[in-house]
Amino acid sequence: MRLRRKPWIDTAILDYADFVTPLGGDWSQCAGAWTEAFGRIAPLHVEIGVGKGAFLTELAARNPNVNYVGLEAQQGVLYFAARKAAARQLSNVRLLVFDAAYLTELFAPAEVDRIYLNFSDPWPKKRHAKRRLTSELFLERYRAVLKADGELHFKTDNMGLFDYSLETMAAEGWQLSRVTHDLHALGEADNIMTEYERKFSARGAKIGRLVAHPPVRHV
Amino acid sequence: MRLRRKPWIDTAILDYADFVTPLGGDWSQCAGAWTEAFGRIAPLHVEIGVGKGAFLTELAARNPNVNYVGLEAQQGVLYFAARKAAARQLSNVRLLVFDAAYLTELFAPAEVDRIYLNFSDPWPKKRHAKRRLTSELFLERYRAVLKADGELHFKTDNMGLFDYSLETMAAEGWQLSRVTHDLHALGEADNIMTEYERKFSARGAKIGRLVAHPPVRHV
Repeated sequence: MRLRRKPWIDTAILDYADFVTPLGGDWSQCAGAWTEAFGRIAPLHVEIGVGKGAFLTELAARNPNVNYVGLEAQQGVLYFAARKAAARQLSNVRLLVFDAAYLTELFAPAEVDRIYLNFSDPWPKKRHAKRRLTSELFLERYRAVLKADGELHFKTDNMGLFDYSLETMAAEGWQLSRVTHDLHALGEADNIMTEYERKFSARGAKIGRLVAHPPVRHV
Repeated sequence: MRLRRKPWIDTAILDYADFVTPLGGDWSQCAGAWTEAFGRIAPLHVEIGVGKGAFLTELAARNPNVNYVGLEAQQGVLYFAARKAAARQLSNVRLLVFDAAYLTELFAPAEVDRIYLNFSDPWPKKRHAKRRLTSELFLERYRAVLKADGELHFKTDNMGLFDYSLETMAAEGWQLSRVTHDLHALGEADNIMTEYERKFSARGAKIGRLVAHPPVRHV
């Protein structure tokens, strides 16, 4: 999702500085210190690509005992997620304008319990495959920060990306579970829809969903 | 594949009685005794749904150090596989007219190293899902006869069946590897095409392929 650059947001987002790290903010002390940042010991769940935050804020509201970190590359989008989190007075959410390529600098090894990827950019051209958030390179980053029994939750309506992700995860030794090519047909009560998911499933698009478990580390 | 009933086959197949168990033949002594049946210790690979045998006979010719058992429900089809195996003088092939539902009576626990399923009947109607050769029920049978490090190799051009199989295998705890939604695009030199595969891929159908590894047994 690309928005027109809105200069006022660079200022407005500072209103949420108590839980938002804006573009250019300092996150260098975060890795290994998330328990301290939240002020409590709790499972740490991370969404990569928060967008406008409908998914993350609803998830955080339903699960007050989980600490949530939301990452989003575009400040102009993350601002709206910050606004939602503030409106719902969610104390278990931290948001960062952040490029997921640097994930292993934001979290210590095995610090993360769960990662969510929702409707990530499919990067359909083969020469852009490395940019996909389920590429071999990104999977290795997730494996580095996830606990051994951690989980990667992935949803997309792009079946090309879904098939690619299944293939890549299997090739990299991830164990798959809860795989479906038509999530909404299952009618799971605990599925939280993203803004994108609501819009496109209303038009009849099928949603793929899977949970992946990191491969066993050979020490 | 359904063929018109050919009564002459019931007699003709007896020409191959040294390596074929025909319809109504006695297989009750096979389980646990395949090493004796082949007269040598070798890995045991099984194809379920041999059809006319192009795949199995080529595979057996390329891998003389593997013992192959081919199962096929229809005698009128298996006859042609038997003829091919005889023409190529393959001593490492045994064929049975057999219903795979009874697999656990044909093989002892952990007797089988590998199972091949090629272009199995998709049984597209939901109420027939249990008949699919990758249903939960059949997976449990494969797990029972496969070694812990055994493999299930699966190919199909039916993407509905492929997706169903991925979902079911993941749900049952099988580890997936070598997953692809377009096998021929990979250009693997060791892919052996079935009759069906040759025909339909020539028409542009994509072939899905995966290898599944049985879940760890909890004793």
